[in-house]
Amino acid sequence: MKLIVLLSGGLDSTTLLYEMERDHEVVAALSFDYGAKHNHRELPMAAYHCNKLGISHLTIPMAFINDYFSSDLLKSGGAIPEGHYAAENMKSTVVPARNAIMLSIAAGFAESHGAEGVAYGPHTGDHFIYRDCREEFLKPMAEALREGTDAAIQLLRPFVKMNKGEIVQRGIELGMDYSKTWSCYKGEEVHCGRCGTCVERREAFSLAGVEDPTVYQNS
Amino acid sequence: MKLIVLLSGGLDSTTLLYEMERDHEVVAALSFDYGAKHNHRELPMAAYHCNKLGISHLTIPMAFINDYFSSDLLKSGGAIPEGHYAAENMKSTVVPARNAIMLSIAAGFAESHGAEGVAYGPHTGDHFIYRDCREEFLKPMAEALREGTDAAIQLLRPFVKMNKGEIVQRGIELGMDYSKTWSCYKGEEVHCGRCGTCVERREAFSLAGVEDPTVYQNS
Repeated sequence: MKLIVLLSGGLDSTTLLYEMERDHEVVAALSFDYGAKHNHRELPMAAYHCNKLGISHLTIPMAFINDYFSSDLLKSGGAIPEGHYAAENMKSTVVPARNAIMLSIAAGFAESHGAEGVAYGPHTGDHFIYRDCREEFLKPMAEALREGTDAAIQLLRPFVKMNKGEIVQRGIELGMDYSKTWSCYKGEEVHCGRCGTCVERREAFSLAGVEDPTVYQNS
Repeated sequence: MKLIVLLSGGLDSTTLLYEMERDHEVVAALSFDYGAKHNHRELPMAAYHCNKLGISHLTIPMAFINDYFSSDLLKSGGAIPEGHYAAENMKSTVVPARNAIMLSIAAGFAESHGAEGVAYGPHTGDHFIYRDCREEFLKPMAEALREGTDAAIQLLRPFVKMNKGEIVQRGIELGMDYSKTWSCYKGEEVHCGRCGTCVERREAFSLAGVEDPTVYQNS
């Protein structure tokens, strides 16, 4: 199938890119610069893998999210909380309707460029605080995109029943170099090691039984 | 209910603004500058009515649609076709997934600003060529936005079973001045009178039994 892949430059979506490249025809990978504190760290990672695989890569500017939306993930928001991803305080990093926005743009882009589907990489660990990673959202969203486009764009989410450890195992099989991915929401020189997404990243390598190549501030 | 209203400055969404202002608390009206040939004509109309009603009005820049999407509605596309809205050739004016994109952004904006719902104005006449104005799209989209946001954002579409003539009748009851709305896709000095949306605009006033205040090139 001809696909558009949503690519942040993080661990999950980069693994997804490699899997989709193996199994489908990837027309382009789309990234979004929406004012997250770590966009400047993850977007170069996204570009690196697209360049390596010879895949067209586009970054959609969405400054309006930073300007008008409320979230601690954004430069306009408060400090990134520390702790486990599933903790209540991580909720302040939710960017309202972010995935609906990105998926809709990707669907319009897909139809405009002759693609038949959009692939994106939510997994079971996202479900605790991010409502827009759950099947309760994804199922009707997939139906809306299919019914709302002339090309009946399909929404692929192959990792939705996998945990992050299984994703890392998959990526290792695909020959991925995880040192070239970025997770930390703080967006500093190296991964902080303490924010929710760093804690989850560490867990993923531990679950996968794979050495973690990440440099953390706090090891 | 606290609402965000999607407002283009056209006949339907402007009527919607007046009705929502009467019946609810309108937190803000959102417009989108996405590179349509007529954006520079309709957006000042949107601003006019918000100013008149004392409603906050924001225009979200979405240049990426003109840059990367395929549609004759866009500056980057071909000529606007002439004929009836329901004609096959009007399909070239579809902007893929446009309404999913606008509704998703409005839902994120709504949650960020303490609103509980998003109102938008598709009607029966839109259904022929615009798949993203039909209930087959709107129903799952509403479910996705409700399930995908912490605020369970609701999607109001009060005109979905009305025709454009009934919308004009509603607007007249609400004291609207339809000379201060813009429909024509060509975006020239005055309405062309021949493109699908001009033909439909003329029909609307005729159906409503109301004098059409529009200046057309071709009367």
